[in-house]
Amino acid sequence: MCTPNGTAAFAQLFGLLALILLLVWLLHYREGFEYDSENPLRVFNVHPFLMFFGFIFFVGQAMLVMAYRTNQSERMNQAKYQTLKILHMALHLIAIILGIVGICAVFKYHDMINLEDVYSLHSWIGLGTFCLFGLQWLFGLGFMLRGAAQSRAAMAPWHVAGGRALFFMAICAALTGLMERTTLNPVPQRRESHLINFTGLAILLFGVFVDMEVGFYRLE
Amino acid sequence: MCTPNGTAAFAQLFGLLALILLLVWLLHYREGFEYDSENPLRVFNVHPFLMFFGFIFFVGQAMLVMAYRTNQSERMNQAKYQTLKILHMALHLIAIILGIVGICAVFKYHDMINLEDVYSLHSWIGLGTFCLFGLQWLFGLGFMLRGAAQSRAAMAPWHVAGGRALFFMAICAALTGLMERTTLNPVPQRRESHLINFTGLAILLFGVFVDMEVGFYRLE
Repeated sequence: MCTPNGTAAFAQLFGLLALILLLVWLLHYREGFEYDSENPLRVFNVHPFLMFFGFIFFVGQAMLVMAYRTNQSERMNQAKYQTLKILHMALHLIAIILGIVGICAVFKYHDMINLEDVYSLHSWIGLGTFCLFGLQWLFGLGFMLRGAAQSRAAMAPWHVAGGRALFFMAICAALTGLMERTTLNPVPQRRESHLINFTGLAILLFGVFVDMEVGFYRLE
Repeated sequence: MCTPNGTAAFAQLFGLLALILLLVWLLHYREGFEYDSENPLRVFNVHPFLMFFGFIFFVGQAMLVMAYRTNQSERMNQAKYQTLKILHMALHLIAIILGIVGICAVFKYHDMINLEDVYSLHSWIGLGTFCLFGLQWLFGLGFMLRGAAQSRAAMAPWHVAGGRALFFMAICAALTGLMERTTLNPVPQRRESHLINFTGLAILLFGVFVDMEVGFYRLE
C-alpha cells in the first residue's frame, strides 16, 4: 500500500508503533486486559486496546485500501475495484464489531466500580463519533448495494469528506481518552506517563498520515 | 465566505459558538483571565482563551480565506489572488503572535505554582504542533516571496496537506487541554463539566468543517 508519496508507508509505520507502545503500556505497566476478569482494571484495559487496535486501526486500513486505488498508474478494472470496495466495507464492519465490544468493556468497568457513564468530554466525543460512524457505514452499504451510478458519483465526495471527519473525531476521542487515563487513579509515574505520551503521538501521526494519504485521493 | 456546500458557514457557526461557550466558562465559572494577575488561575485562563480564540480561530479563518478562492465561479484575477495570499499570511502571523502569548501564560502559571512544564500529552502535542506550525509559516512565506511559479505549483499540495495536518493536531491539542483542565483542581462540578464538554464539541466541529471546506478546495 506504499504510494509514490510515501504517506501510506508512514501511516503503517505509526499505526504499528502505536500498537506496540499500547501493548507495552497495558501489559507491562498495567495489569493486562481481560473482558471476564474480576479485576476492574483488567476489564477497563480492554477498552483502550479495542478502541485503538479494533476500531481506529481497522478503519485506517479500510481508508488506505480505497486510497490505494487512485495511486495506481492505470485505471483499475471493474472487478478489482469491486473487490476493494467489499474489502473497504468488511474492514469497517470488523472495526464496528470490535468497537462495540470495546465500548461494552468500559460500561462494564463503570458498573463494577460504580462510576457514572458518559460524563467526560472523551465519552461525548467517542460515543457521538461511534454512532455517526454506524450511520455512515449504513449509508455506504446502501449506496454500494442499490445506488445508481449517477447518485453514487454525486455522493462520493460527501462519503469521503464524512469518513475523514469521523476518522479525525475518532483520533480526538483516543487522545482525550489517554489524557483522561493519565489523571485517574492509579496516576502513572514519570516513565509510564512518557510512554503514554509517545503512544498518543503515534496514534496522532497514524491519523495524520492516513488522512494525508486519503487527501491525495482523487475521485475519478 | 459561504460556499454552495455550506461547510464554511457551519465552520463559522461552530467557531463563534465555541468562542461564546469558552467565554461563558472562563468569565462565569472561572475567575476570568488576566496576564498580570497575582491570582495564578486568572493567569492560567489566558492560555485556553488565546490558544483557541488567538490561535485556532485565526488559523481557521486563514484557511477559509484561501479555500474561498476555488469556490468562485470564475477564475480569480491575479491581483485579487495576491491580496488573498497576503491575508492568509497575515492571519497566520496574528495567530502565531497570540499563540506565543498564550503559551507564555501557561509557563508563567507553572512558575507561580511550581508545576513541572511540558509533562502531559496535551503539552507534547501542543508544543510540537506550534513549532511545526512556525516552520510551515516560514516555508509558506519563503515560497510566496521567492519561489518560482513552477516550484510553487509543485509545493502547493504539500503546503495544503501540511497545513491541514497541523490544524488537525491543533484541535487535538485543544481537546486534550480541555480534558486535562477538567481533572485538575478545582475539579468542575456537573454543570461546568457539561459546559466544558459542549465547548470541546464546538471546537471539534469548527475543526471538522474548516477541514471539510478546505477538502473541497481544488488546486488549479
